[in-house]
Amino acid sequence: MNIVIIGGVAAGPKVAARIMRNDPKANVTVVEKGKFLSYAGCGLPYYVSGVVKTQEELMSTPVGVMRDPVFFQKVKNFTIKNFTEATKINRAEKTVDIKDLNTGEESSLSYDKLVICTGASPFTPPIDGADLDGVYHLHGIEDAEGIKARLAEKKALDTVIMGGGLIGLEMTEALAEHGCRVTVVEMLDHVLPIIDPEMATLVEKHMEAKGARVMTSTKVTAIKGEGKVSAVVTDKGEIPADMVIVSVGVRPNTALAKDAGLELGKRGGILTDATMLTSDEDIYAAGDCVEPIDLITGEPTFVPLGSTANKQGRVAANSVCGKNDAFPGVIGSSVCKVFDFTVARTGLTDKAAKAAGYDIVSVIAPGPDKPHFMPGAAPIFLKLTADKDSRRILGMQAVGPGDGDKRVNAAAVAITAGMTVDEFAQVDLCYAPPYSPAMDNALVVANVLRNKLDGQYKSAIAQEIKPWLDSGEAVLLDVRSPGEREQMLIEEALWIPLGALRSRTAELPKDKRIIPFCKISLRGYEAALILQDAGFEDVVVMDGGIITWPYKKTVK
Amino acid sequence: MNIVIIGGVAAGPKVAARIMRNDPKANVTVVEKGKFLSYAGCGLPYYVSGVVKTQEELMSTPVGVMRDPVFFQKVKNFTIKNFTEATKINRAEKTVDIKDLNTGEESSLSYDKLVICTGASPFTPPIDGADLDGVYHLHGIEDAEGIKARLAEKKALDTVIMGGGLIGLEMTEALAEHGCRVTVVEMLDHVLPIIDPEMATLVEKHMEAKGARVMTSTKVTAIKGEGKVSAVVTDKGEIPADMVIVSVGVRPNTALAKDAGLELGKRGGILTDATMLTSDEDIYAAGDCVEPIDLITGEPTFVPLGSTANKQGRVAANSVCGKNDAFPGVIGSSVCKVFDFTVARTGLTDKAAKAAGYDIVSVIAPGPDKPHFMPGAAPIFLKLTADKDSRRILGMQAVGPGDGDKRVNAAAVAITAGMTVDEFAQVDLCYAPPYSPAMDNALVVANVLRNKLDGQYKSAIAQEIKPWLDSGEAVLLDVRSPGEREQMLIEEALWIPLGALRSRTAELPKDKRIIPFCKISLRGYEAALILQDAGFEDVVVMDGGIITWPYKKTVK
Repeated sequence: MNIVIIGGVAAGPKVAARIMRNDPKANVTVVEKGKFLSYAGCGLPYYVSGVVKTQEELMSTPVGVMRDPVFFQKVKNFTIKNFTEATKINRAEKTVDIKDLNTGEESSLSYDKLVICTGASPFTPPIDGADLDGVYHLHGIEDAEGIKARLAEKKALDTVIMGGGLIGLEMTEALAEHGCRVTVVEMLDHVLPIIDPEMATLVEKHMEAKGARVMTSTKVTAIKGEGKVSAVVTDKGEIPADMVIVSVGVRPNTALAKDAGLELGKRGGILTDATMLTSDEDIYAAGDCVEPIDLITGEPTFVPLGSTANKQGRVAANSVCGKNDAFPGVIGSSVCKVFDFTVARTGLTDKAAKAAGYDIVSVIAPGPDKPHFMPGAAPIFLKLTADKDSRRILGMQAVGPGDGDKRVNAAAVAITAGMTVDEFAQVDLCYAPPYSPAMDNALVVANVLRNKLDGQYKSAIAQEIKPWLDSGEAVLLDVRSPGEREQMLIEEALWIPLGALRSRTAELPKDKRIIPFCKISLRGYEAALILQDAGFEDVVVMDGGIITWPYKKTVK
Repeated sequence: MNIVIIGGVAAGPKVAARIMRNDPKANVTVVEKGKFLSYAGCGLPYYVSGVVKTQEELMSTPVGVMRDPVFFQKVKNFTIKNFTEATKINRAEKTVDIKDLNTGEESSLSYDKLVICTGASPFTPPIDGADLDGVYHLHGIEDAEGIKARLAEKKALDTVIMGGGLIGLEMTEALAEHGCRVTVVEMLDHVLPIIDPEMATLVEKHMEAKGARVMTSTKVTAIKGEGKVSAVVTDKGEIPADMVIVSVGVRPNTALAKDAGLELGKRGGILTDATMLTSDEDIYAAGDCVEPIDLITGEPTFVPLGSTANKQGRVAANSVCGKNDAFPGVIGSSVCKVFDFTVARTGLTDKAAKAAGYDIVSVIAPGPDKPHFMPGAAPIFLKLTADKDSRRILGMQAVGPGDGDKRVNAAAVAITAGMTVDEFAQVDLCYAPPYSPAMDNALVVANVLRNKLDGQYKSAIAQEIKPWLDSGEAVLLDVRSPGEREQMLIEEALWIPLGALRSRTAELPKDKRIIPFCKISLRGYEAALILQDAGFEDVVVMDGGIITWPYKKTVK
């Protein structure tokens, strides 16, 4: 059986290796346009930062063997032709036209089964100056080398990152560690659209505390420079720039597939069934060029990730070999390190859930990721979203220096299994003090959400509370201890420490909504119970506490 | 409504606080025999080690407020009587006899609902010398203070830990960090019966590398000393000892419940339904004194943990208040830090699964917990066990310096949801290089197990392989590179590096079972595929590689 695979970076070699495992007699050829094979593209920000020392580490096996054509032939027994571009798929003849980019020689490969693994490429916005020297994407190893060369030339570069998505923020950290003055310019209201606005606010504040400048709701209109970039022009003014990183998203590489008449989705990705078969019965696809199904909404989506490419590659290979396997889809799980913060998400954000027509209830439960008495305990802001009627979990978001991705992964399994928040709250997770609080953060947020679903708890995020204060219908109640108030203060809030609240409720207005809060609102919750007990009927806790308050507060 | 709760350490205060949240008018009294309330017993090894600096940290809220009777009254609005022993439950009268341990005064509390949260206590084996000075359990704060006082008296104590369970190993680390010479004496073949023997072997080797002595299959027959302990006598000789920690397990404190005629389980714990109701319709129970249901076997079990006590406490409180809630049971999830290793488990071990009548398939997949090019990537040995017919996941075990509990927690959710290994392998987990390999370790082990279930992969653990070598029916094949052989070697193994194997298969005997291995057997798997391709029919990979080989090997 002749199998041709187009693309040799992520899904392609996976498909090839798995086919050889299934059928050692198969004749597999991988064609790859570029020089580099099977490299860890997601590691590039860490190569730029210097955390990863050499290019070769990204292209070698865990024991240090280079994944080059010789390795693949000797160990895996398949052929990789690099510097070879696939120029046309001839579906009727079942051939692929190819061109040797070194010699210019053209030829053709015939296939019994074809697998398209052409990946995705950074989108370049149609603005003047996008081709100036000093403007980089971060897609291939060549980009990383270019950035590193520029960093070596000059210290403390003024750098503008266009786009506050995952790669943009990873690059912010990488370049800040080189001493660059980094400005992130994001067109939307907030960075990281993978999380909700109030969670993104926490990330933005952390970035600014680390010395990066974050400009949201800002549109880049041009990149300026004489040959070499000198500034980025935005609708909020000009930003001097020695270097610009364009990270405004990627698009699937599907020109070949489109020319061949294969069915594509709304986002331009190839549509496949769960066996990774395209609209042609002899052509499969896997990796970033595919639109997988979102398991929650049931609609095709586009979430290019190495993890998904690997899974799809295995399924495509099994399908090619006639073995029963299926890739059901994704739920948008993502994680990103932003300086000292872990930002993780699975399932739907509130925004996405509402857009998909769900009636949702969500809550933020902050807390340390270990018992507070253990050294290294670090806070996580954990947000959980459920469908109001079915109580099924729709999404979880984590932001903070604590171990958030661990909790989000547990929720990812729960969402995949269709668990309700009630079922999730009872899962027997591992517990010992070096690893988690007795009630793991994931279970605590589930229980708080159960309270909210049951009407035992009312809470709102800062953005919901602000208008109530402005209209005078609500008052803020700070229940923290005096020492805490010396660090951070909302001037207009009333103040009664939690321990004194039960005996001092008479000081509070009965005709207004009371918004109790503390640092992260655990005691805000206690306060709400005391107030309810004292006959206050309209008590709404501030979700996430004073830390999430994005408006004027005094930080001492 | 009058509610009496017996026990004020873990589940008790949780029940009380939750009742007050549900029903602020409830009249709740907690009676606690000891001085200390609501303290983190699981933190005691870390208080002994010095990681936790003061006793108070274990007894205070995250913001440093002491959880004493005044705190509970003022903030939570319930009454705790400490130094007060419940001496008898009078079910007909619905009263509890109590005794003030300070004054000796006896009285009685009447209840509408009673909740028993009496916990568990360390078991003292019936041997001579168990009451000598210098012999400690590690149950209460008093024990921890006693051990700390002794450590302050003399440096480099000879310490014997009786029992290699979770607490025994946590104490081994704590005392080794104080410079003690620690010997762990375990009656069974291996320490940590929560994991399978070949996984426990890895832990034992790590403990020995850290300077602790591990004596397995060793029975303590007496503790010797004149007033003060001087040695531990075992069936394998006498061990000098300045201090002995007895950690041979705990037993539920159910004398009160038993006297009252409540139904108990085989292990002496109180039996309840899922609402935490005992065999008396007005008496509930929660925490370590209860035998919860093992969700996999459906049988009562005994796994005393703070996490379970918390969950049961919430359910018991909701049930007392007439709210619908249920605690379904546990799946034996546990985690333990042993020096630099994380040891975690969920579900059934192979041993337990076989004992429960399952026909199982299991496999060990070792690998780094992050891409190998990221600094701090650390190995995990991950073992996954599934039911052969249904392919449902039965258990996962993790051992090693890598982030194992995270993977085990994901499996815990999967087991709770009844997922098959095929479903689990496709879950969309978070991926970025600082957090996990592109294919998370949990998904890799699931895929290797799928291969094994499908007959595409054969593997066996060292303990299964050894007899085949002794009988001459099998040969070992080392496929590592020359440099690796300089570190560690099995002398009798044949050697062909993986890269050369395809061209040198003629050197191998065709009439014998070939056992390829490398350091951790990823390349052992590659080798098996090459050998199968070359016509070798009986190829079995060594599960976990040379690192798990417990027999003679040369370590250079």
